[in-house]
Amino acid sequence: MRYYPAPEGGLDLAEINRAVEAAFADHGRGLVQMPPKLYVTLPKGDFRTMPAYLPSLDIAGVKIVNVHPDNPGQGLPSVMALTIILDTETGRPTAILNATRLTDMRTGAAGAIAARFLAPKKECVLGIIGTGRQAEAQVRATSNELAISGIRAWSRNPAHAEAFVARFREFDAKSVTLEQACDCDVLVTTTPSRTPVVKNEWIHEGTHINAIGADAPGKEELDPAILHRARVFVDDPAQAFHSGEINVPIRKGLYPPGMIAGTLGEVVTGKRKRERPDEITVFDSTGLAIQDLAIASIALRQAVSMELPFE
Amino acid sequence: MRYYPAPEGGLDLAEINRAVEAAFADHGRGLVQMPPKLYVTLPKGDFRTMPAYLPSLDIAGVKIVNVHPDNPGQGLPSVMALTIILDTETGRPTAILNATRLTDMRTGAAGAIAARFLAPKKECVLGIIGTGRQAEAQVRATSNELAISGIRAWSRNPAHAEAFVARFREFDAKSVTLEQACDCDVLVTTTPSRTPVVKNEWIHEGTHINAIGADAPGKEELDPAILHRARVFVDDPAQAFHSGEINVPIRKGLYPPGMIAGTLGEVVTGKRKRERPDEITVFDSTGLAIQDLAIASIALRQAVSMELPFE
Repeated sequence: MRYYPAPEGGLDLAEINRAVEAAFADHGRGLVQMPPKLYVTLPKGDFRTMPAYLPSLDIAGVKIVNVHPDNPGQGLPSVMALTIILDTETGRPTAILNATRLTDMRTGAAGAIAARFLAPKKECVLGIIGTGRQAEAQVRATSNELAISGIRAWSRNPAHAEAFVARFREFDAKSVTLEQACDCDVLVTTTPSRTPVVKNEWIHEGTHINAIGADAPGKEELDPAILHRARVFVDDPAQAFHSGEINVPIRKGLYPPGMIAGTLGEVVTGKRKRERPDEITVFDSTGLAIQDLAIASIALRQAVSMELPFE
Repeated sequence: MRYYPAPEGGLDLAEINRAVEAAFADHGRGLVQMPPKLYVTLPKGDFRTMPAYLPSLDIAGVKIVNVHPDNPGQGLPSVMALTIILDTETGRPTAILNATRLTDMRTGAAGAIAARFLAPKKECVLGIIGTGRQAEAQVRATSNELAISGIRAWSRNPAHAEAFVARFREFDAKSVTLEQACDCDVLVTTTPSRTPVVKNEWIHEGTHINAIGADAPGKEELDPAILHRARVFVDDPAQAFHSGEINVPIRKGLYPPGMIAGTLGEVVTGKRKRERPDEITVFDSTGLAIQDLAIASIALRQAVSMELPFE
């Protein structure tokens, strides 16, 4: 059994996008096994357990990831993760990966793939709401799929927004108001909000929205009225109903689950697509275990590891 | 983060029984978080993902365990496991345990606790059906709870049965026929059977049965008629309906789920008990994640470990 302490080192973001896209394609064709992730609540956060089997890559395993918003006060990341890989022939555990940064990257890749297929054009202004680690991962991954002609970023903390735009001068990044950030081609929301931060009237026709932040029951970032104007694609219906951007509107009776336009897997495989340049599209990302297996399959081939006894 | 390659070394079986009993008591009082385990099917077996949080021991984590019946032909155990422990305050992964032998031991402990509370008397003859690793774990754990005055063991493979009884001469162990094994006070079944091996007419009044083998959909060891004569206690209702001894009879309409007498947690906390010396009782064990956390909590204090970088 091998342990990979820093498997993200040197990975190629474009290759990750392709592997994650292929995993979504398998999902769209019903070729994966992936029960909805399980949540366990801890006193100051939660952890999620995400098993899956991806036959096309001959890989199976489980990601375990926590979310503890107060951790940064103690010098720890909010989100930390391990991925355990099992041999598909014998079930033997063969690898353990530190998946904290892999989690950021595979989530970025999902947003990038959604933007590639659903953005209104190939050269886009990105609106960025929330400027933490995940926002950075989204921009870096998406820059491999679209030409980014500008970035308009907002954070609750202006100093964070300034630091963020300083890292993306190459894309003409600017710190703006919340409303100005929404004036874009592709809007990316990565906040931990439990009340909508994006107002309906700020979203113009033709916008694609990557709604990344909502990944647990009670979280939401978008005014539910946006969902009614938009065609909403989810990564996985069961997970999205439970914990995605649509979870609160569904629970409140403000969004009928039957209104969902499809899954990203269906988009990637060509069964669903953006129909008109002026329609609003939303990708509701909760994060799939098959994304974790896809990125792990690349890391296992390339990254430094150490042998652990397992008998 | 620490790795424990052989955490079972030197553990005290009586201490494990007490920890597992306390975990069942917490379960019986509704003080644990434990979603039903998730199953993923692989080409030659499956793996199960088992998260839980046990506040009384301040421990949280996930066990990942496979079942591959053909593995011994390749020199590998059928069942291998890892347990991942997370810090309950921050969600940070703090330990990884090789849980292959811990799994045997915590399953043995559950049977021992069930026998302690449900056996018709304190000095018992054990009937043993199936003589693999789990049968041995059951006898060793149970010997800490009951006085064992004899063992009557049967295996499909007579050589395995002979080797088994040779290890338990101290308990006057004898290799016998299937029917003779059923003539006992406490019957322990640990086969991977998918058709009943124990006939109704072989079970006399007053017997307690630990039905350990059925732990996946389609598995069963007991003639369903036995369940109708008996009071059946389960470890966890949701898991038992899905994959315990009662799963096939329930699916076939041969056993109404409402007939269950209660959970082992309710027995341990005194809410349920054996009512009469002549009643037949069954403990349907599927294996709970809280058992894995309970045994891990002991191993973490005592076992040898190595530091792994996790940043």
